[in-house]
Amino acid sequence: MARPTPLDPDFAQRVRDSFGRQPFMRTIGAELTDVAPGRCTIELPFREDLCQQHGFLHAGVTGTLADNAAGYAAYSLMPADSSVLTIEFKMNLLAPAVGERLIARAEVKRSGKTITVVQAEVSAVKEGHEKPVAMMQATMMCLHNAPDRP
Amino acid sequence: MARPTPLDPDFAQRVRDSFGRQPFMRTIGAELTDVAPGRCTIELPFREDLCQQHGFLHAGVTGTLADNAAGYAAYSLMPADSSVLTIEFKMNLLAPAVGERLIARAEVKRSGKTITVVQAEVSAVKEGHEKPVAMMQATMMCLHNAPDRP
Amino acid sequence: MARPTPLDPDFAQRVRDSFGRQPFMRTIGAELTDVAPGRCTIELPFREDLCQQHGFLHAGVTGTLADNAAGYAAYSLMPADSSVLTIEFKMNLLAPAVGERLIARAEVKRSGKTITVVQAEVSAVKEGHEKPVAMMQATMMCLHNAPDRP
Amino acid sequence: MARPTPLDPDFAQRVRDSFGRQPFMRTIGAELTDVAPGRCTIELPFREDLCQQHGFLHAGVTGTLADNAAGYAAYSLMPADSSVLTIEFKMNLLAPAVGERLIARAEVKRSGKTITVVQAEVSAVKEGHEKPVAMMQATMMCLHNAPDRP
Repeated sequence: MARPTPLDPDFAQRVRDSFGRQPFMRTIGAELTDVAPGRCTIELPFREDLCQQHGFLHAGVTGTLADNAAGYAAYSLMPADSSVLTIEFKMNLLAPAVGERLIARAEVKRSGKTITVVQAEVSAVKEGHEKPVAMMQATMMCLHNAPDRP
Repeated sequence: MARPTPLDPDFAQRVRDSFGRQPFMRTIGAELTDVAPGRCTIELPFREDLCQQHGFLHAGVTGTLADNAAGYAAYSLMPADSSVLTIEFKMNLLAPAVGERLIARAEVKRSGKTITVVQAEVSAVKEGHEKPVAMMQATMMCLHNAPDRP
Repeated sequence: MARPTPLDPDFAQRVRDSFGRQPFMRTIGAELTDVAPGRCTIELPFREDLCQQHGFLHAGVTGTLADNAAGYAAYSLMPADSSVLTIEFKMNLLAPAVGERLIARAEVKRSGKTITVVQAEVSAVKEGHEKPVAMMQATMMCLHNAPDRP
Repeated sequence: MARPTPLDPDFAQRVRDSFGRQPFMRTIGAELTDVAPGRCTIELPFREDLCQQHGFLHAGVTGTLADNAAGYAAYSLMPADSSVLTIEFKMNLLAPAVGERLIARAEVKRSGKTITVVQAEVSAVKEGHEKPVAMMQATMMCLHNAPDRP
């Protein structure tokens, strides 16, 4: 989708506020580093306590970042008084998640009133070089008249 | 698959040892509560620091449990000197993950020399009542001659 | 889901009528052999002109049956004045689709007002023996006030 | 993947020969219109006998094209004496498949010795305008020492 127009001019703040209300993001040390209409980037510095048995970041961490980036990419295009819900996601792991940090970038591919389809890619940054480690295709749902804020 | 026969008689200990080497499981407080040939159960007590913005357990946590249960269900049928790798997974979210604990149960549906296909279901236990919150279909790969242990 | 109650008492006829309006089902020779609340079975006799390069039924044919069985299993629980739409599906191929016929059986796992999640399994029957060849997990959507009939 | 190098200089002919041995492609009238290293395009003229109940091309047809384009994109990078096998695919439907023809374009995203991950997009061409109707993410497997030819 080339340059989608957000319904809510304050979409970026709304996304950042929602991200800030996710305790799990603080637990794993994830940061929302960019939001644009239909796009979102989340980054995570490597930590040993997030790894699986071979010292790579756990697929569950990679999936968490991709799902969250996908959800907020979708949410950026939704109306102010809505919430976003993950219906489903599918992720392929391409390579071990090793390096100094992970970057998950998501982009909306189809934005509808109810259903939004998003692709996300997760890369690992090692010594300044970025390598794709996972690819996600996800389906998000808009809950109208159900603001995300508490 | 009705009662698959494990190639490795010590499969249960091998699975438990591998699970024990996953720092991320300790970080989120997940426990391996059952291993059988082609099956695995992982449980997780509710914790606020694992939640998303509405107070439900984060989809990334649910996905982590389902992926891990699926991987170890597959690994239980693999030979002693092998490792297991997640190729991909797809998960549908069925209901908000609320309650006292999550239970992820996985079962191998097709076990081949290289590729294993697994289904997993995650339920939330609330006041003694169990409710399905997610369903996963995953593809695992056996790395032969690549022991999991360090 | 244990014995879901259909909203429309005439669900079976509605499903059969809709299936009968799918020209592609006639083209490939598929038959709707069973409909129950939240369940559907579609069968297809083997035909050489539906095969891929190794003489097995094409994955696209297997996917067609699974998607259609999943869609009609979902549709059986939807209201009379609705249509069903496939949002997405994911299918694992377990074994080559060879034999005298394919049987696709689908079962609703979560039925909501808008979103329904379905699992389907496709088996091949060869000399009276049934073998699983594919597994699907699919997401269907209900279009309210949009009758399927022309 | 930027300009992958094929292992087999005759990859294009090998892909075309394999496609030519798929009777189902003739049955539905699909044509292989382009092969490049890690890429494949398949097109299909609209036909009423390939439709579902609302007069749109059946999701099974769309899935068949995407799966086949994905499989041959992967196969273009595999060695001469190999076969390609679909392990699994996941497809989102974005819009009704209407128009004069469908175009499925696939591109390899990760090519390994055994496992290849591919993305495919299917567009519908209507009065000269192209519109995305489906997106697939698929996993293919290389069978070594198992030539595709009969």
